[in-house]
Amino acid sequence: MQRLLTPVRRVLQVKRVMQEGSLLPARLLPAVHPRFSTFPAVPLAKTDTWPKDVGILALEVYFPAQYVDQTDLEKFNNVGAGKYTVGLGQSQMGFCSVQEDINSLCLTVVQRLMERTQLPWDSVGRLEVGTETIIDKSKAVKTVLMELFQDSGNTDIEGIDTTNACYGGTASLFNAANWMESSSWDGRYALVVCGDIAVYPNGNLRATGGAGAVAMLVGPEAPLALERGLRGTHMENVYDFYKPNVPSEYPLLDGSLSIQCYLRALDRCYTLYRQKIQNKWKQAGNDQPFTLDDLQFMIFHTPFCKLVQKSVARLMFNDFLLASGDTQTGLYKGLEAFRGLKLEDTYTNKDVDKALQKATLNTFNKKTKPSLYLSMCNGNMYTSSLYGCLASLLFHHSAQELAGSRIGAFSYGSGLAASFFSFLVSQDASPGSPLEKLVSSTSDLPKRLASRKRVSPEEFTEIMNQREQFYHKVNFSPPGDKNSLFPGTWYLERVDELYRRKYARRPV
Amino acid sequence: MQRLLTPVRRVLQVKRVMQEGSLLPARLLPAVHPRFSTFPAVPLAKTDTWPKDVGILALEVYFPAQYVDQTDLEKFNNVGAGKYTVGLGQSQMGFCSVQEDINSLCLTVVQRLMERTQLPWDSVGRLEVGTETIIDKSKAVKTVLMELFQDSGNTDIEGIDTTNACYGGTASLFNAANWMESSSWDGRYALVVCGDIAVYPNGNLRATGGAGAVAMLVGPEAPLALERGLRGTHMENVYDFYKPNVPSEYPLLDGSLSIQCYLRALDRCYTLYRQKIQNKWKQAGNDQPFTLDDLQFMIFHTPFCKLVQKSVARLMFNDFLLASGDTQTGLYKGLEAFRGLKLEDTYTNKDVDKALQKATLNTFNKKTKPSLYLSMCNGNMYTSSLYGCLASLLFHHSAQELAGSRIGAFSYGSGLAASFFSFLVSQDASPGSPLEKLVSSTSDLPKRLASRKRVSPEEFTEIMNQREQFYHKVNFSPPGDKNSLFPGTWYLERVDELYRRKYARRPV
Repeated sequence: MQRLLTPVRRVLQVKRVMQEGSLLPARLLPAVHPRFSTFPAVPLAKTDTWPKDVGILALEVYFPAQYVDQTDLEKFNNVGAGKYTVGLGQSQMGFCSVQEDINSLCLTVVQRLMERTQLPWDSVGRLEVGTETIIDKSKAVKTVLMELFQDSGNTDIEGIDTTNACYGGTASLFNAANWMESSSWDGRYALVVCGDIAVYPNGNLRATGGAGAVAMLVGPEAPLALERGLRGTHMENVYDFYKPNVPSEYPLLDGSLSIQCYLRALDRCYTLYRQKIQNKWKQAGNDQPFTLDDLQFMIFHTPFCKLVQKSVARLMFNDFLLASGDTQTGLYKGLEAFRGLKLEDTYTNKDVDKALQKATLNTFNKKTKPSLYLSMCNGNMYTSSLYGCLASLLFHHSAQELAGSRIGAFSYGSGLAASFFSFLVSQDASPGSPLEKLVSSTSDLPKRLASRKRVSPEEFTEIMNQREQFYHKVNFSPPGDKNSLFPGTWYLERVDELYRRKYARRPV
Repeated sequence: MQRLLTPVRRVLQVKRVMQEGSLLPARLLPAVHPRFSTFPAVPLAKTDTWPKDVGILALEVYFPAQYVDQTDLEKFNNVGAGKYTVGLGQSQMGFCSVQEDINSLCLTVVQRLMERTQLPWDSVGRLEVGTETIIDKSKAVKTVLMELFQDSGNTDIEGIDTTNACYGGTASLFNAANWMESSSWDGRYALVVCGDIAVYPNGNLRATGGAGAVAMLVGPEAPLALERGLRGTHMENVYDFYKPNVPSEYPLLDGSLSIQCYLRALDRCYTLYRQKIQNKWKQAGNDQPFTLDDLQFMIFHTPFCKLVQKSVARLMFNDFLLASGDTQTGLYKGLEAFRGLKLEDTYTNKDVDKALQKATLNTFNKKTKPSLYLSMCNGNMYTSSLYGCLASLLFHHSAQELAGSRIGAFSYGSGLAASFFSFLVSQDASPGSPLEKLVSSTSDLPKRLASRKRVSPEEFTEIMNQREQFYHKVNFSPPGDKNSLFPGTWYLERVDELYRRKYARRPV
């Protein structure tokens, strides 16, 4: 089993790989494109000059102060008990009234993060928003967030909005890290903001909604460092989930296609990620294969919790099909019958699924289940789903348990764009360490979740109807009680006759 | 006058600045945020390890094969002769029928670029699309472009879509360059794609429309290198131009506010840019002020050509207000009466405007006017406007004339997000050099513009009505004659009952 390397050894490894230029594809040598020969066969820049350990320094999660219970929804929708709670693995679902929109969600989460970290507003040099909750086809949420920076006079903040379904948060995170390693970096922090309001028409689909936002402070020497050069990305053109009916807030969804696309993308991304990390290890003289054993934790974009359990199983199936030697005992026991199958033929194979879920139950419970806490209690936050899982994982473990581990992360956005990547957790878990601070910042999650208001399906449906009614309306002040929002929450105060939105904040 | 430094001298300068950490704001030292002290006072990474001269290697422009003449539109709209042609500075306006949408525009321009450069499809490791022509609130144009890569098997391509009005192309370009200087870079090229369809309701505003797309190949050793560490960015929350009425293809626009925002952002960005470059020079022992003399060429986002002439004047006004010594003769002659004014008080001052435009006429004609060629003949391409200006500039000058120059660039997206930045043109203009190839690739612009079909305002209006009628319709095949498109153009073949879009390509 490949154990986590110490940071020092890691740096040396990466350095060697880079010096030998092993990540430069042979196909890019000049001879391949003779008519356009301006591209030199340069080696990659040396990694040891980039700022150290760029990644997540701090993280803030926002979810609405009201939820509907999934058992209540099951009764209300007159479906079998367990359809949502067991079938989907969901227990509660947060939702927003007309008082909240994507701008207010992001205003809230950014302000909370800045207040928590007590950073000056002019210490931010980049802010990018990933969202698919588009209420204006031109004006970025980012521009609305500039209001928060106004008093500081800091208007020199790069980054705008980025969109592809639930992938926008990850794209923003990658862009922020790239910025920090590039010549564009001016020494300031980056903020990555992702948020969404996931709503569906009345019916079973509605139970897969959710709402929320996550803001992340990105910088060097981070307790959660993005592991360099190790992203497996897969993008293709499919119509599994999309929002072409723009006058409506609801998406179009081909559920079974989307699950298949998600799992296929997971296979492809994991394969690429594994190839890249193995190449890296090989350069360091280590010929062992990469397996799930090398990921101490795994988090996934979570449309609903049950899919994530399938995903862990899927990753083990990838490992199993590549495993040499004895696979009849140990981890892969009970899978031998599926040895001859191809990945792409098994997306809907229930026997495979069942056997895999059984074989991976312990792995799932240990490495992934704790990350589903927020998804289970709040539903799908789209772009912020994966980062809500990260927050849940941090909450459920001590800094000591996390220190030195590798967290695998799978981001998926329908349409589709997906990446498998990883965070390396810093070794230092001492009190007051960045890691310990980050971990302890998530400790209020249960209290905040418990303080939400449980709303009946009837009232929830009424509020969803209001959302429909006010969607793209002008000249109104949203109905609803501001006092039902958490203290410190920004809310939509008014949309004027020219669609201009004005926001206010509930006192902290 | 500060002359352009030779590349070698430049590199040394940058290196020194970086080593001394002079770009690291003092306010970011740990003492400033005592409760959150994970941020180290790291100096910036050394620049000499990034790939050399990351920037634009090749560029492709696409515009529609039909246009309406602005003199015809003046008559049709029954406005005074010259209102559009002189007042706006526009002569013709390209437009798309229902056969074209943002996906088809981007498909066309990417395929043309790849065919021209003869690069293999798997040599691209990043592709990002900047657009504000949103026809799906979730699914990125980027995912549709993945169709082009399908046969190559290359699905490992990072980047999705990015949006804030006309700024998306610039954000994509910055992101691509950052990627290439970061640890995420795997040695492959980046493609930056920007495109838009700018349409307005019937009336005078309609004359400020346009349509088109630009694709840029980004890599190291580029003939147009992005000048490092020199971006002046300004972002704020305003409602000058936006698209909140999502069921409509048309924006909401406060014209005079938007011009004021544009000019204010220009002032702010230019001020920041100048401070940054002067800091850099100071570190190298050069204490001279930066002025327009240090920009051999200037390009601007161009909503309409006349605004760009005002912008050049505006930049000189900035220089004038900061100039010490004799400003009564030479460049600034005739401006002395305005010495005591503040920048922010003069956005609508016609006397200032008139005097400035007179004083800067030669500068405008020499440094900027040639860049307006495409804007004048095709109108506003939104995100791709600035890069159409770049192509026009390249077309109007020989590689020899361009070699070694600095091109100032101002990107503006309403809402707002704006940056002033610069390209350094390579010194090598010899036949077959990357610069010469890039310049000569633009030589077909006049022929392509001349081969467009001139359409009467009546027919144009009819086609605009068709766009309204089919906007967000389902289950239709667009009307129109495919043969009216340029050879090699992708077009929308069908939108099925589930809004899924299918495209086909006219033979080359």
